[in-house]
Amino acid sequence: MTSKGSRAAIEAPVEDLVQGLVAALGADLVLSGGEVERYCRDWHGDVTTGAVAVLRPRSTEEVSACVRAAAALGLSVVPQGGNTGLVLGATPDAPSAQVVLSLERMTRVRRIDADDFSAVVEAGAILAEFKDRVEDAGMFFPLALGAQGSCRIGGNVSTNAGGINVLRYGMTRELVLGLEVVLPDGSVFDGLSTLRKDNRGIDLKQLFIGAEGTLGVVTAVSVKLMPQPEQVATALIGLKALDDAITLYRRARRDCCDLLSAFEFMPPLAFTLAREAMPDLAMPMDGGYPAYVLMEISGSGLIDIEELMQRFLEGVLADELVVDGVIATSRDQSRKLWLFREGMNEGQARRGPHLRTDVSVPLSRLADFVRDAEAAVLAALPDCICVSYGHVGDGNVHLNVLPPGDLGRADIDARIYRAKTVVNEVVDAYRGSISAEHGIGRLKKADFDKRLPDVQRRLLTAIKAAVDPTLVMNPGCQLNFPSLSGKSA
Amino acid sequence: MTSKGSRAAIEAPVEDLVQGLVAALGADLVLSGGEVERYCRDWHGDVTTGAVAVLRPRSTEEVSACVRAAAALGLSVVPQGGNTGLVLGATPDAPSAQVVLSLERMTRVRRIDADDFSAVVEAGAILAEFKDRVEDAGMFFPLALGAQGSCRIGGNVSTNAGGINVLRYGMTRELVLGLEVVLPDGSVFDGLSTLRKDNRGIDLKQLFIGAEGTLGVVTAVSVKLMPQPEQVATALIGLKALDDAITLYRRARRDCCDLLSAFEFMPPLAFTLAREAMPDLAMPMDGGYPAYVLMEISGSGLIDIEELMQRFLEGVLADELVVDGVIATSRDQSRKLWLFREGMNEGQARRGPHLRTDVSVPLSRLADFVRDAEAAVLAALPDCICVSYGHVGDGNVHLNVLPPGDLGRADIDARIYRAKTVVNEVVDAYRGSISAEHGIGRLKKADFDKRLPDVQRRLLTAIKAAVDPTLVMNPGCQLNFPSLSGKSA
Repeated sequence: MTSKGSRAAIEAPVEDLVQGLVAALGADLVLSGGEVERYCRDWHGDVTTGAVAVLRPRSTEEVSACVRAAAALGLSVVPQGGNTGLVLGATPDAPSAQVVLSLERMTRVRRIDADDFSAVVEAGAILAEFKDRVEDAGMFFPLALGAQGSCRIGGNVSTNAGGINVLRYGMTRELVLGLEVVLPDGSVFDGLSTLRKDNRGIDLKQLFIGAEGTLGVVTAVSVKLMPQPEQVATALIGLKALDDAITLYRRARRDCCDLLSAFEFMPPLAFTLAREAMPDLAMPMDGGYPAYVLMEISGSGLIDIEELMQRFLEGVLADELVVDGVIATSRDQSRKLWLFREGMNEGQARRGPHLRTDVSVPLSRLADFVRDAEAAVLAALPDCICVSYGHVGDGNVHLNVLPPGDLGRADIDARIYRAKTVVNEVVDAYRGSISAEHGIGRLKKADFDKRLPDVQRRLLTAIKAAVDPTLVMNPGCQLNFPSLSGKSA
Repeated sequence: MTSKGSRAAIEAPVEDLVQGLVAALGADLVLSGGEVERYCRDWHGDVTTGAVAVLRPRSTEEVSACVRAAAALGLSVVPQGGNTGLVLGATPDAPSAQVVLSLERMTRVRRIDADDFSAVVEAGAILAEFKDRVEDAGMFFPLALGAQGSCRIGGNVSTNAGGINVLRYGMTRELVLGLEVVLPDGSVFDGLSTLRKDNRGIDLKQLFIGAEGTLGVVTAVSVKLMPQPEQVATALIGLKALDDAITLYRRARRDCCDLLSAFEFMPPLAFTLAREAMPDLAMPMDGGYPAYVLMEISGSGLIDIEELMQRFLEGVLADELVVDGVIATSRDQSRKLWLFREGMNEGQARRGPHLRTDVSVPLSRLADFVRDAEAAVLAALPDCICVSYGHVGDGNVHLNVLPPGDLGRADIDARIYRAKTVVNEVVDAYRGSISAEHGIGRLKKADFDKRLPDVQRRLLTAIKAAVDPTLVMNPGCQLNFPSLSGKSA
């Protein structure tokens, strides 16, 4: 894998480049040789590459120095947080021309201000640890995703991470109040305000959210905090058909107002898969309904959340919109319901390599999409199994395709590739997105590129040229920009 | 008022330019002569300028043609929606070199999809009319501001409008799912998706939100819709001090969860001013408390909103956090409470020309800021009166300064200018924003420019050059960009 968009070919031997970095930055900031490897392997372990070195700055000033030193040697910079991304956005692709810039040493929480409902945190802070610190201060940071024990907040911003609370609190973009970013020339964009409302023209920070490090290195973030949801009620609900999940969602949005914090759908196979990974899981209800919803409402203060959930379920059972439902009445019970969702992923992993997708469609069409896409996959690949689940309120579907376990790797890979093509074609027919929450990175670049309208391409190219004219930042990620050095854009 | 950032001086006589526009676009799209005037006067009537013509396209294609025709004649384009902006963003400033491009004929609601919680609407639709259409479909579009009977949705997007529901639903930016924009070269950026989650890299539409027409013309918008809040409870609350409003806000966020939809503060003078404008208004409570909060919670379905408000008020009265409170128990009573807020503005207008500000500070510091800023203004201008009110949850203060009514215009203007300078200095000391929700436009350009860090200026200039290299779009608004034609950026 090499990047067409990388800078002019580097001719110096790697050892000389490492020496140049050490001379500019000091040995403490530079890892090389065998120490580099773990930063050059992606989260799933599917791809292992290399890099000239890994730079590990401890401060914003050191990030500036790292970017400048790399650029001066003709190297480009691949920023990396927790390295938990699923699309190779932080995985280098030109081992002798790139450095990884790891934010793992910048973990400081600079400020938590409960009265201001805000916090300022450095990019390398691990999400779960930051959430704990916020909780200690009596507040709540709602971003929540599977990787939260490893992912870092700068990566969450750079990928505009989603997760299970998007329905209520939005993607990471909607939680960000301000950013500090080291730009490709080493200068620092200081936009770390915590103001809730600030309408001074074009909002530059938006450019860097979701840019996957192609325009600069996010070094610190100011975020919104919320009151802690002191009460949580979780329900697992059995449905006659996935279509009913959309109707149920509309009803839940109305009846539970803005207190709905998760509304996930799962297929019956979820239980089988979960118990393959976690055989001790007790079945919370009949596993034979055509579709399931895992729903959560949460809140604090004067509203009785459990009673609200009970009244809601009574109403929809009485109206025969749902067939069965159980409510978790303790945190422990609630955790067990969520374990089915997590166990389902582990169960899929145990069945071997498979296609994982992350697509979105208009939410009114989610059930139609799942039906059409699964039918198209099974028509093309009759020996595969489809597992579709996701976030109803976001129109976000993870339609995964599991090849038979007894095939050789080449046959499996062929099926995965074919399944991806089929799913993406159905996504296109629904005017959906081939990346709902994971980003583009390097993994989805070709599929993104193919679908990119000319006007968008021209804008993206012009903005890349404006912010990073010499292509220092993460070349090969998102788009292959024409080399801009030495000629005008 | 002329713009340093405008294009090369136009030497053709205005009549020839008008003829050129008519030849390219047809007479029906072009207003000139006396018909132009009302588009060249700002909302407050403080500034009247001129323009070569007003172009009134009926479709996206005609917007493209207008932009191309203007550019071909060397004219620049000032986009205009309802012309209700408060910072001269849509008021031309180079009468012989600019055209106004009015979106007033593009008023179509292209689609309302209740199951998708979304709508697609053209930029010229009047906000209140769009909200009514959405309500007819059983849904709710939460953007709400004083000018909603006249402002147009494209202007709301271009200024990232705020209003009274920001606390719960966010600024306009957070309500936008997609945009259609005519770019400075006449090409069309088609980003009108209604997907809730779409993480395909850099989110280009963000650039145009709040750009006040400096990067292109917003022609259509797709937005999020919400369930209708079927129940609303409004309370007027008397406090011992403005500091208590912050404590009360924290308590309300906790006790009422995410159902809080407005939390405004007002001074005791609000009642006097409101009754000067509306003498029939009945006093809802003692007018002599040091500070007041107007608070609203709303929701639908299974939660009893009125009971929630009652229990909340009982709790904070028992804890002596508030001194007095009345709850509106009908829509009519609620409207009367809000009339004090509106009447206060009318009452200020009746007292003659005065300083209106729109600033924000970290919300934990709001009360300190009001105290310091009012003290600074009164120290500098002892014969003036301060009226401070705003949105507690957003840290947004409108600190207005009323000079004595018996002064001549020159003395009034001098006091307004001095008061603005004093307020902005205190805003700077609090690291606040000189424009919380109104934008920059032409009115605040100098104050914005003066405070703009070099790194931000370089980024803004590079982006303007990337998207609008020949400065076609709204020159003179937000920043004076160096003329880029004929030389490289």
